[in-house]
Amino acid sequence: MVKMNSSFLWIEQLKFNSQGLIPAIAQDYRDHTVLMMAWMNREAIQRTLETGEAYYWSRSRDELWHKGATSGHVQKVKEVYYDCDADTLLLKIEQVGNVACHTGARSCFFNRASLPTSITSNEVTRR
Amino acid sequence: MVKMNSSFLWIEQLKFNSQGLIPAIAQDYRDHTVLMMAWMNREAIQRTLETGEAYYWSRSRDELWHKGATSGHVQKVKEVYYDCDADTLLLKIEQVGNVACHTGARSCFFNRASLPTSITSNEVTRR
Repeated sequence: MVKMNSSFLWIEQLKFNSQGLIPAIAQDYRDHTVLMMAWMNREAIQRTLETGEAYYWSRSRDELWHKGATSGHVQKVKEVYYDCDADTLLLKIEQVGNVACHTGARSCFFNRASLPTSITSNEVTRR
Repeated sequence: MVKMNSSFLWIEQLKFNSQGLIPAIAQDYRDHTVLMMAWMNREAIQRTLETGEAYYWSRSRDELWHKGATSGHVQKVKEVYYDCDADTLLLKIEQVGNVACHTGARSCFFNRASLPTSITSNEVTRR
């Protein structure tokens, strides 16, 4: 049990939404790949600090979610940042198994959206 | 005006929240720094595709927000991804001026949270 002493007053500065949740971006701490975005409540943050592994709040199951508890693909937290508005978290993590997504993909962001040629042609020109 | 033809059907797959918004993570397309997280509605996405520059929905001002319109720190969109649940966007962008945050910081995530020594000492041990 981690004592929530004055060192962790940053938690009190966070702005949770009306459901008591704050979005948390999980990013690989080595190569900076964005792996997933999920939601945390105060308890999820506290459990994450206590264990060093990422806990989230599952909005679909409406319960605390120890990421990787079933799959083994836990996330070891290395650093935590919050943004200028204190309403979003950024977790720098070590992704055990190198798989963050429930689909088996490394990152949940595997769907690349098609863009207008006016954008993609700019990119070609730049290179 | 970009024609929203069948190439952009991915927009129809997105899951907007009850306010018609979807979170969008902006990440530097070169060094992968996470710069900010903001919200987009359907119009913001469409304007982003039309112009190649990131538009968001400002929840505080309750209006469409052309990022950088005032500061000049616009975001040129290079790639767009959506996640496995289609409820979060990841924009790979070129940050003009190399400043994404309204505070003048490069990234909005400049607040590093203090963590228990049980976590930080793990990190020291690993290295």
